[in-house]
Amino acid sequence: MNELQSLLHQVAENASEADMTLLKDFLISIQKKQQNTSTTYLNAVLQMDIQFEQDTCIVTFPITPLSFNTFDKPHGGIIATVMDNAMGYLVNKDLRTEGKGAVTTNMNIHYVKAATQESLIATASYLHKGRQTLVLECSVTQPDGKRIAHATGSFFVINPPDSSK
Amino acid sequence: MNELQSLLHQVAENASEADMTLLKDFLISIQKKQQNTSTTYLNAVLQMDIQFEQDTCIVTFPITPLSFNTFDKPHGGIIATVMDNAMGYLVNKDLRTEGKGAVTTNMNIHYVKAATQESLIATASYLHKGRQTLVLECSVTQPDGKRIAHATGSFFVINPPDSSK
Amino acid sequence: MNELQSLLHQVAENASEADMTLLKDFLISIQKKQQNTSTTYLNAVLQMDIQFEQDTCIVTFPITPLSFNTFDKPHGGIIATVMDNAMGYLVNKDLRTEGKGAVTTNMNIHYVKAATQESLIATASYLHKGRQTLVLECSVTQPDGKRIAHATGSFFVINPPDSSK
Amino acid sequence: MNELQSLLHQVAENASEADMTLLKDFLISIQKKQQNTSTTYLNAVLQMDIQFEQDTCIVTFPITPLSFNTFDKPHGGIIATVMDNAMGYLVNKDLRTEGKGAVTTNMNIHYVKAATQESLIATASYLHKGRQTLVLECSVTQPDGKRIAHATGSFFVINPPDSSK
Repeated sequence: MNELQSLLHQVAENASEADMTLLKDFLISIQKKQQNTSTTYLNAVLQMDIQFEQDTCIVTFPITPLSFNTFDKPHGGIIATVMDNAMGYLVNKDLRTEGKGAVTTNMNIHYVKAATQESLIATASYLHKGRQTLVLECSVTQPDGKRIAHATGSFFVINPPDSSK
Repeated sequence: MNELQSLLHQVAENASEADMTLLKDFLISIQKKQQNTSTTYLNAVLQMDIQFEQDTCIVTFPITPLSFNTFDKPHGGIIATVMDNAMGYLVNKDLRTEGKGAVTTNMNIHYVKAATQESLIATASYLHKGRQTLVLECSVTQPDGKRIAHATGSFFVINPPDSSK
Repeated sequence: MNELQSLLHQVAENASEADMTLLKDFLISIQKKQQNTSTTYLNAVLQMDIQFEQDTCIVTFPITPLSFNTFDKPHGGIIATVMDNAMGYLVNKDLRTEGKGAVTTNMNIHYVKAATQESLIATASYLHKGRQTLVLECSVTQPDGKRIAHATGSFFVINPPDSSK
Repeated sequence: MNELQSLLHQVAENASEADMTLLKDFLISIQKKQQNTSTTYLNAVLQMDIQFEQDTCIVTFPITPLSFNTFDKPHGGIIATVMDNAMGYLVNKDLRTEGKGAVTTNMNIHYVKAATQESLIATASYLHKGRQTLVLECSVTQPDGKRIAHATGSFFVINPPDSSK
């Protein structure tokens, strides 16, 4: 703990405003994980809000400097992470009732526009529900309605879901 | 700063070993960003080591609980992030000498095996170098040589590289 | 011509019903090409019917033994051909008014179900209209409404459209 | 037969050189199918030559006007057909010894250059051999060595191979 405090002091001395905000965000995200408000560190750190509506899953998340690529735009990999989550959560929510789960086997992403707003919304829905494989699509849009990216994904059903542990 | 210290105390009181390690890692990654050892927070946080060898870019990174999905395996989106980086770094390194840059327009990923080792290696190389578009491939392997994922990506040349800022 | 007649006789002597039907279909398709009812031999041979409705292009085609793979099902490549056409026709119809054209740079196809009916319908629409790149999607369904395949495609604008000739 | 002969006469009267060549090619391809030199009409019509070398499958085919798109270049769908075949033949050859087969579930294609030579060579090899899914890649090159297209494909194992009939 002393080591952490001393490290925090060093970092804080040279900290930009972004550094301080990210530090605070990170501490809060660890707290959320401790309180089981988030199922994974990654969800907590990316501040994902997850909603289910009928046959869709909608994940909203803020753009912070943590997600920036070298052009100070949201990194394509972070957008991929959130799309994979939106599709995967939808699939796993539906399969859990049957005692099953599913893993991503393929994801194809078209990046169509650099994001310019402060949050992004990923909306996932089904293209095909098979017994062994499922295919979904996911669009990422800004609050102004502009599409930033579009993905399709293949998921393979595993049984039981946590066999990999 | 007092707010941060108080938050750190709260978090530390309930912290698991993983929580403490991630906190320390995060503070060190902010420090690296301050010292310009990393170009982005994301690279620092994911602890990416980037090497160029001939016509390839090799990115190595450790698997920590920060990268875990709900099955405690490296998240497909994190693997996508590192592959996008490996391909993008190679492209941008080569274009920089011409005063240009490139952005990802398409990425297709096949996830073939759940990772079981403590680090992963992404190796990117060219499939096609066009004037306006470039196509690359990237494989992610474990230190034991097993392939975890394989991606192909399309990149579109922009001029100047930072026009988006 | 005598050579063709003699070849036709040889082929006809050993012909199955499918052989005879395909021969007749082929002769009719050459005729359609001669009469400019079809723009390409391939469209004529695959008997594609092309319709535009609002912002979509709908291509309908019959399944004949010519399209069969080794499992006597419509070949994935033939389905890809028709999807590429549906997306490409839509893009090129719209760009022609500006004196431009577009070529496919990427196509990703999910095959979700083996076709069981006698015709298929490919419906293409836009996901993104950019200045230099366009992204479309295309679903192939049976008359009974079941989805057989789903594709997304990237198209790159070229100017003039026939510069490649 | 009289109907076919009469149709052949009509077509021949207005035939261009390309028409006559395609007619002859088509008759020969039906003959090959009759003699079981080709397993499908499609292989015969596209004049595919299929070779296996170690862990690859190499399919060579001539570019004829039958394969042309509206720009008089080989149609992306025909290139997709041949790539799907090269990957599928490799997979099915290997699975047949176990009494199994496989179908394409996903194919992603990057088209990188318009073809300019008179034949194309598709070379398929493995990226991953799993128990239930296989991932392959396939490059299409010209005799001059230039790459025209690159694909990756996912295949799903079925047992027995002809269960779909």
